[in-house]
Amino acid sequence: MPELSVGQFSLVANMLSFSIAAMGATTLFLWLCRGQVASPYRIAVTLSGIVTFIAFYHYWRIYNSWTEAYTVVDGVITATGLPFNDAYRYVDWLLTVPLLLVELILVMRLSAQETFTKSVRLGLLALLMVALGYPGEISDVNSTRLLWWSLSMLPFLWIVFELFVGLRKAIDAQPPAARSLISKVRYLTIAAWAFYPIVFLFPMIGFTGPQAETFIQIGYSIADVVAKALIGILIFVIALKKSETEVKA
Amino acid sequence: MPELSVGQFSLVANMLSFSIAAMGATTLFLWLCRGQVASPYRIAVTLSGIVTFIAFYHYWRIYNSWTEAYTVVDGVITATGLPFNDAYRYVDWLLTVPLLLVELILVMRLSAQETFTKSVRLGLLALLMVALGYPGEISDVNSTRLLWWSLSMLPFLWIVFELFVGLRKAIDAQPPAARSLISKVRYLTIAAWAFYPIVFLFPMIGFTGPQAETFIQIGYSIADVVAKALIGILIFVIALKKSETEVKA
Repeated sequence: MPELSVGQFSLVANMLSFSIAAMGATTLFLWLCRGQVASPYRIAVTLSGIVTFIAFYHYWRIYNSWTEAYTVVDGVITATGLPFNDAYRYVDWLLTVPLLLVELILVMRLSAQETFTKSVRLGLLALLMVALGYPGEISDVNSTRLLWWSLSMLPFLWIVFELFVGLRKAIDAQPPAARSLISKVRYLTIAAWAFYPIVFLFPMIGFTGPQAETFIQIGYSIADVVAKALIGILIFVIALKKSETEVKA
Repeated sequence: MPELSVGQFSLVANMLSFSIAAMGATTLFLWLCRGQVASPYRIAVTLSGIVTFIAFYHYWRIYNSWTEAYTVVDGVITATGLPFNDAYRYVDWLLTVPLLLVELILVMRLSAQETFTKSVRLGLLALLMVALGYPGEISDVNSTRLLWWSLSMLPFLWIVFELFVGLRKAIDAQPPAARSLISKVRYLTIAAWAFYPIVFLFPMIGFTGPQAETFIQIGYSIADVVAKALIGILIFVIALKKSETEVKA
């Protein structure tokens, strides 16, 4: 474990606790307010809450693992020897990343056929992206890390292509009230996701130690809160706008 | 850690437990009774419950941190050496203070455009206010504290201006039954919030030690219960009154 200062340890603990609160609060909000959107959008909103709930669970585990890996007594920090299990993040992503793409597809309310095809395709690509990253993440050998990073980038770029080219027609066909917001959700998703492959490269360019660890934990937490909680709220707003348009029409 | 008496330690522990109970109870009340208000106000009422839920979570953490920082055995109090993490308060405020302003905007039921603009502006100002306070809070240097206090006061004053000048027209346009109550919520919010920058100044005027710590913990708890639980109940009452007026009309 890197030799953190008390300040670094606390900052990460506070940020992990912030994520627990943000994910839990978003989950409850989405589930309680799903009745506010029209029936066809309720699955998308519920699913957005499922994603933040899964993240809530994993942040709880990550927080406990972090606070068990160190003790602070009389202002002095010591590693307890217990491992900090960062792999909970990969377990979380395996579930949440495919579902995030499915909630975006669902709120667009395409035909049943298109919804199925695009959800399966994007979901499998996302699963592949996370799974291919893992062998690199647990390796200390730079060439191995680079290999798996490159393999993982292929489905990532394919997802970007699908979101911007494959979905273009479907987004143009959205009602005007929701169109620009759906488009923004795509950009925000890709911007938040871009953080992960960049962080992955850190150990390979020599950015390690306590500062790197602190930065990585805080960065992952912010990227997760944006990609899951903020996107979830935006999916709800899109569903609300589309419900109003369709009731009025 | 300051050398508290057993009485001071217990008083703070009891006050923190009071806050857990008050926040948890308000959360459940707001969520259980949201069906009593008309549909357009349910998001505001649910959100008020989300705010008290986030505070409930953080008071749980603060209470545990407080009771782990001291032990009382045979009437003698000893510091355990474990740190009391007061920063949970800042983590809480980062989430709840922007949301508190959003719930006030939502219950006014302005146009979609105004709701969005005002929520984003007030939300970001609130976020900035809390974030700028933090570097000062964790510093022991008076000039550093004063710098961040002053910076944090700028968004605070801007929020006061927005609430009293920016919202004046919108408040005048509210139905008579709800108008004066919405106006009072503004005053109560600002009155409760004024407590925080005052407390922030305490260490700089030499008010430290066990008495100051006891006073600060109790003061923060009361201010939080007023600003979140009491305001949340008032938001519910406003929503109820507006629902009745609109059904009658």
